[in-house]
Amino acid sequence: MGFRILKKNKGARLGELKLGGYTIQTPAFVPVATKAAIKGLTAFDIEELAIQILIANTYHLNLRPGADVIEEFGGIQKFSGIDKPFMTDSGGFQAFSLGKGAILGRSKFEYEVENKPTKEASIAKINDEGVKFRSIYDKSEHILTPEKSMEIQHKIGANIIFALDECTPPSADYEETKQGMERTHRWAKECLSFHKKQNKNNQALFGIIQGGLFKELREESAKVITNMAFDGFGIGGSFGRNQMYETLGWLQPFLSKEKPVHLLGIGTIEDLINSIGYGMDTFDCVSPTMIGRAGYIHIRPESGGNKGNKYRIRITNAKFRNDPSPIDKNCDCKMCKRYSKGYLNHLFKAREFSAYVIASYHNLYYMINLMREIRKAIENNRFKELKEKWLG
Amino acid sequence: MGFRILKKNKGARLGELKLGGYTIQTPAFVPVATKAAIKGLTAFDIEELAIQILIANTYHLNLRPGADVIEEFGGIQKFSGIDKPFMTDSGGFQAFSLGKGAILGRSKFEYEVENKPTKEASIAKINDEGVKFRSIYDKSEHILTPEKSMEIQHKIGANIIFALDECTPPSADYEETKQGMERTHRWAKECLSFHKKQNKNNQALFGIIQGGLFKELREESAKVITNMAFDGFGIGGSFGRNQMYETLGWLQPFLSKEKPVHLLGIGTIEDLINSIGYGMDTFDCVSPTMIGRAGYIHIRPESGGNKGNKYRIRITNAKFRNDPSPIDKNCDCKMCKRYSKGYLNHLFKAREFSAYVIASYHNLYYMINLMREIRKAIENNRFKELKEKWLG
Repeated sequence: MGFRILKKNKGARLGELKLGGYTIQTPAFVPVATKAAIKGLTAFDIEELAIQILIANTYHLNLRPGADVIEEFGGIQKFSGIDKPFMTDSGGFQAFSLGKGAILGRSKFEYEVENKPTKEASIAKINDEGVKFRSIYDKSEHILTPEKSMEIQHKIGANIIFALDECTPPSADYEETKQGMERTHRWAKECLSFHKKQNKNNQALFGIIQGGLFKELREESAKVITNMAFDGFGIGGSFGRNQMYETLGWLQPFLSKEKPVHLLGIGTIEDLINSIGYGMDTFDCVSPTMIGRAGYIHIRPESGGNKGNKYRIRITNAKFRNDPSPIDKNCDCKMCKRYSKGYLNHLFKAREFSAYVIASYHNLYYMINLMREIRKAIENNRFKELKEKWLG
Repeated sequence: MGFRILKKNKGARLGELKLGGYTIQTPAFVPVATKAAIKGLTAFDIEELAIQILIANTYHLNLRPGADVIEEFGGIQKFSGIDKPFMTDSGGFQAFSLGKGAILGRSKFEYEVENKPTKEASIAKINDEGVKFRSIYDKSEHILTPEKSMEIQHKIGANIIFALDECTPPSADYEETKQGMERTHRWAKECLSFHKKQNKNNQALFGIIQGGLFKELREESAKVITNMAFDGFGIGGSFGRNQMYETLGWLQPFLSKEKPVHLLGIGTIEDLINSIGYGMDTFDCVSPTMIGRAGYIHIRPESGGNKGNKYRIRITNAKFRNDPSPIDKNCDCKMCKRYSKGYLNHLFKAREFSAYVIASYHNLYYMINLMREIRKAIENNRFKELKEKWLG
């Protein structure tokens, strides 16, 4: 893996990340392919969309089809038919958040820390060894340790893998967050050590900075993690309401020129643009396809997209039933050139699968294209102007 | 509309059907786009697959989004973004079969003929005027008359439309079938008369031959319908178990060289190939996409597909979990060139939307490609050899 920064502008970094035979232009959006597929799309769509890199989910893939199956196929690229670089997460977040057997909203997860039971009986239990959890599929018991996480991710064979971390919930107080962070640091060391021994496929390992809502802890975590021999870093955990930019500000002094930084599970268009201004290089988020399947269609600022409407329309709204205009007349994706709002409204109302395909494709194009515009803006010293255009 | 037969071989007809600016090579398979979309696919897939013509559903489109909306958009092509010729059915079959508010299996429908109630209270009622039914969406009452069917189909604007017919159930006796057939003939005349007055968009109107399981009635219906000024004919209704080929045999003397014949709702690969041997030109069937979504993947004879296994494998079978071989190694569609059985097995097990996309695309390619092979075989006087290869 090689990374270099080509240019900086107003805090934003234009970079180039080399991974195996692939070159990724950063900042880059990393679409989520939880189960080794972007929901509703094919490998052909992924190529058409010029998606540069994807992130798959260690928790889900290890349960189904199993890491061994993917290894037999020669790794996730060969298994999925998607000839693009991949990341995998550590599996920890899902083990915590899905541990109770229910899919809870982001940042709403709770899990049982040793000797500190949550209100509800939880299936996931965490201690220094790792996370014990039950499969959401068949309730079978599993334990995810740093070694196990590395082992699974080595089998899946993504180009970038992540160290196991403890992602403390936003409700955690200072002491709890500190304990979680220290555990994250111990696990980071263990992951590095296992990775060194087992890494056969030239996979890059990223460490994750934790520390929750507390400046002192975030700084400590940044110092500890960036001093380890990771190939890059992830920023994880809770940021609290409106506190993300402050947190990213705390971390800026610790960013390295030689190593890329990945912001885990970024949420909105607004957060994406702003966090690039804090030097973030890559971002993953399930949002474009998830909101797409729910009928939310991203629209560009020229079409009225703004912070207030979250850059989207709800295509199922009755006012679009007779609307022959393109999905977004200012988008140049093939779906917008072909389809009207009225037809897409009909497909959603009729619950046709094609609705999900069209909406997911368009929303991903929108993100990928936004990133292209951002890279161009940084290159031309116009990141500030881009921010003004998009954020008002 | 223009139709001519280029060649005949062993009962099979090679033809050319001109519709507006489009030319369709026959025999042709007509994929079903019930609600103006092939489930899971886009207009781009339809172009890639070289699908020549599609059939949409008058019943569904009239309820959602409404025929008026489609007319406002300038007809079904402009509405759907699919630049291909379309057929629409008359809406009668769904009014009968969905009339009870439940989706019943094919050929299992029952409806209430005037003064002859079925065992269950039915929502659909048929009399000489038309079919009264309730919407499956909101239970609102509708009546479908010959005039209404024409009016709706004129608004939807497909290139080929069908006269309203009464499709008697397979359980119907001679008297009931005869009454249904006679009603079909009266409605056919009415449809023709309305169509002459209202046809602004140069739509072709096909009449439907009924007569159920009875030779005398089938012959009578064929004589009456083929003597009317229709642009082509459909063969509808029940054939009974193993009686389809016999029925098609009865109808052969009535087929015209100048007018195409469409076999409505053909079921299996075997029936498709055989009925081409009885001079059928076009066929619609929901099967490729419907069985595809259920995990059934068509395989070619070279890959072991035969009458016994219905030319398909069930990809969800556990034995495919570790199978790195192509979906069908003898199929040259892009999905088979890219994806393995193991990956598709995984996508189905994980209930990923992409599974339905891949399976539907492949199964449609399979049918379209089979039709290409059949046309080539007729051209080269090798239809018998093709039948032997496929049917054994």
